[in-house]
Amino acid sequence: MEQVMEKIRGIEHQLYAYNYALAIIGIDAETAAPTDSAEGRGEAVSLLSCKQYELLTGDELGQLLEAAAALELDERAAAECRELRRMRERYTRIPAEEFAQDSRVFTLSQDAWHKAKEQSDFSIFAPWLEKGLEIRRRWAGYIDPAKDVYDVWLDFYQDGLCMASADPFFAALKEKILPLVRRIQTEGKPVRTDFLHQDWPLEDQRRLAEYVMEAMGLSPNHCTLSESEHPFTSGLYDGDVRITTHYDPQDMLSSLYSVIHEGGHALYERNVSPALRYTVLAEGSCSGVHESQSRLFENYIGRSREFLSWLWPELVRLFPKQLEGISCEELYRAANRAEPSLIRTEADELTYPLHIMVRYELEKQLMHGQLPVAELPAAWNRLYKEYLGVDVPDDAQGVLQDIHWSGGDFGYFPTYALGTAYAAQMVEQMKRSFDLGHCCAEGNLEPVRAYLREKIWQYGKMLEPAELIRRGCGGEFDPECFANYLERKYTEIYEL
Amino acid sequence: MEQVMEKIRGIEHQLYAYNYALAIIGIDAETAAPTDSAEGRGEAVSLLSCKQYELLTGDELGQLLEAAAALELDERAAAECRELRRMRERYTRIPAEEFAQDSRVFTLSQDAWHKAKEQSDFSIFAPWLEKGLEIRRRWAGYIDPAKDVYDVWLDFYQDGLCMASADPFFAALKEKILPLVRRIQTEGKPVRTDFLHQDWPLEDQRRLAEYVMEAMGLSPNHCTLSESEHPFTSGLYDGDVRITTHYDPQDMLSSLYSVIHEGGHALYERNVSPALRYTVLAEGSCSGVHESQSRLFENYIGRSREFLSWLWPELVRLFPKQLEGISCEELYRAANRAEPSLIRTEADELTYPLHIMVRYELEKQLMHGQLPVAELPAAWNRLYKEYLGVDVPDDAQGVLQDIHWSGGDFGYFPTYALGTAYAAQMVEQMKRSFDLGHCCAEGNLEPVRAYLREKIWQYGKMLEPAELIRRGCGGEFDPECFANYLERKYTEIYEL
Repeated sequence: MEQVMEKIRGIEHQLYAYNYALAIIGIDAETAAPTDSAEGRGEAVSLLSCKQYELLTGDELGQLLEAAAALELDERAAAECRELRRMRERYTRIPAEEFAQDSRVFTLSQDAWHKAKEQSDFSIFAPWLEKGLEIRRRWAGYIDPAKDVYDVWLDFYQDGLCMASADPFFAALKEKILPLVRRIQTEGKPVRTDFLHQDWPLEDQRRLAEYVMEAMGLSPNHCTLSESEHPFTSGLYDGDVRITTHYDPQDMLSSLYSVIHEGGHALYERNVSPALRYTVLAEGSCSGVHESQSRLFENYIGRSREFLSWLWPELVRLFPKQLEGISCEELYRAANRAEPSLIRTEADELTYPLHIMVRYELEKQLMHGQLPVAELPAAWNRLYKEYLGVDVPDDAQGVLQDIHWSGGDFGYFPTYALGTAYAAQMVEQMKRSFDLGHCCAEGNLEPVRAYLREKIWQYGKMLEPAELIRRGCGGEFDPECFANYLERKYTEIYEL
Repeated sequence: MEQVMEKIRGIEHQLYAYNYALAIIGIDAETAAPTDSAEGRGEAVSLLSCKQYELLTGDELGQLLEAAAALELDERAAAECRELRRMRERYTRIPAEEFAQDSRVFTLSQDAWHKAKEQSDFSIFAPWLEKGLEIRRRWAGYIDPAKDVYDVWLDFYQDGLCMASADPFFAALKEKILPLVRRIQTEGKPVRTDFLHQDWPLEDQRRLAEYVMEAMGLSPNHCTLSESEHPFTSGLYDGDVRITTHYDPQDMLSSLYSVIHEGGHALYERNVSPALRYTVLAEGSCSGVHESQSRLFENYIGRSREFLSWLWPELVRLFPKQLEGISCEELYRAANRAEPSLIRTEADELTYPLHIMVRYELEKQLMHGQLPVAELPAAWNRLYKEYLGVDVPDDAQGVLQDIHWSGGDFGYFPTYALGTAYAAQMVEQMKRSFDLGHCCAEGNLEPVRAYLREKIWQYGKMLEPAELIRRGCGGEFDPECFANYLERKYTEIYEL
């Protein structure tokens, strides 16, 4: 066994190096690269992706995995082989030339999206979206021709997810949320939000971000924060994780909750066991599990009354003028206002799933060719009106707001809502072990980290997503838990 | 021919992708990475360098180059093969395992240097310097066992350079500079420099950098500026070049001249003909030629009376308080003060070569094993006293100030002095074509760019360094030209 696994790990090591390079190139593209530099980047990304592709689909790995199949492997080695086999199966089905060509397309597509968003001009991005959809449909056909094209990608981001399970999940959620939103609008005691929109100096917002990262246990020795159009997390290895935020000079909460959200992702990546370093297991599990961790910190901790009461003195210190005459309870309610809005990343907990449902509906139609790309902006605006009751003023604040589709990530959005629902149950479970509210009120998140490290983080991809969710939730996933949480929380805030 | 060259260019394309990845990883390490992230970076860098090594030393390229040798190639194809053969010859001699192992060492060594400099503690860096020297001595033995180890590396950075030519160059320069420095100190009319040391707000220094980059023709669409401990330039391809600077809040000129220096490098990389893109010819020539371009902009343009007269209104606009009561002529003299100092990158034109000579002497001894690493700081301080008359207060401002040795770049420093001397002659030649002073006074540097683009930049590595120097200098290189320039300039400034 030793010899076979040593060789397999040599290949994993190489995969790590390519992943590292591609991740750094991606971070650079979003945070530092000159505006017109996509061409040279596209060339490099395409070639490096091909090298990775060759490694994964090559005969050497094939033979090694075959040899490994005949051996008695320990749990970790078995998991490494399982992941490698899964990746290999997927990649092998996509022809090499198409893989190279298509990787280049997505680099250029992301560049086009940036320019389109900047100019709020969907027509710049439309032809690239068309290409991206065509690629993903084609690839879905390669990966599993027997399966629905959109189901292939749902499963890609979250093992086992398909429309047959997502449709009822969203339908039930919609049934719970829409009436609640309406009750708030008609019967709810108004929440004061006027003070949110004023000048919040960037320098002080930066200090706030540092303060919160420190409390989360993210030291600049291993995790840095930079700025990008769209906040994201990129984990290089457990010793090096990057997060980004986007500062809105008129809205302090926007970056605050981005930092806490990305900080949750970062903690997950930082706490994968170093023993798994440089293997394919050395990263967080599928998107749904990953999003459960970011949403857990963002919503269940960051938006809690206790956490905000701990943060309050620092907020007042940094923003004495802006918060004059405001109480911590008022901030808490404002940070939890249920207010149909335009931008997903800034949405509150209650209306957030509606943003996801819009994307889920549209992705489904786009992938199935039922919605022509040219009609997407109108369809987007129509659904925002229907689900959220808001009028979309321009494409930058509408269909162009998210980076995902430009990189070919169709089927990713549902994992945000699922992750949020997992997190609700995980938090309930966590509260059986220790007094979460007390920890938050003291700004002491180590018990949270210790708990999640034990249940989820340390394993990386060693355990399957379903098992991680079971461990985190303390049993089978129950979407009711999330729905009940929302009802409880918003009934209290709006005194319904 | 078509078919062979097409395959060769496929390999060049792959080399480009690895270069791109390694360059971005390097930029990230110096500008954005968390402080304790060297381990994972070292792994990735080592593996990617190996892939590059395998490509260069592999049978495929060997057979293709052999096939190409029998063909009638056009000038460009012949140059591509020449460069590939040169790289292949060097790499082939270094055993693969050592190549991998040693690449990792330099990543960790640079990290140790950062920490050592931060704490001004040479002992943190000493064991890594020892390792680096051992590696470079060993590699020199592989590359050319018949040659002196230091000569191998001089030749590596500047084709044809060796101690036999560098020794007399530096000796003659020293003979010219030292008496001039002494005359200035004894007979020179003092230059007012008191106003240089005050608070120069970083925000305004940043605006100044942007203003100067714009005048140089470096648009943020293709060239961005960021901050690092040690300023550097990194060219990804002609459409994407990065420069960095280091702001000193107490000294505005420090970053100003770093930006102009790196801007010169950047212009060179930006103006390599796009026709050479993704080939091994698509970058500036050897270090001496490259430094001639950066020093040309830094000294002969940036420190000229005419350029400063153009910049003056903007300086006064940005720093009205700091420059109150100061004349442009006083700034000109202050920016050209000949003042023995501690830091190479901030040195004036006259004493700069002395900083290089210190390093040249020490590198030579280190490479030859005549100076134990433990004794390096003392030797450094002794030579700074001897050549520059200054006392080194600590290692951060002494032996640890430069990044070069930590990355294994022994033999690079002399190219700074040589480049500066080439530039003196190039400027003289340029002045025969157009009125350089007038262009500088108007802030119109397009004629300079057009001239250098035609003579040097466009060719990338297509022409050999000697030929580029001949074209730039309008004939054979004559070191006297630089010596005379220094004498003329400083006799005037100090009214000797």
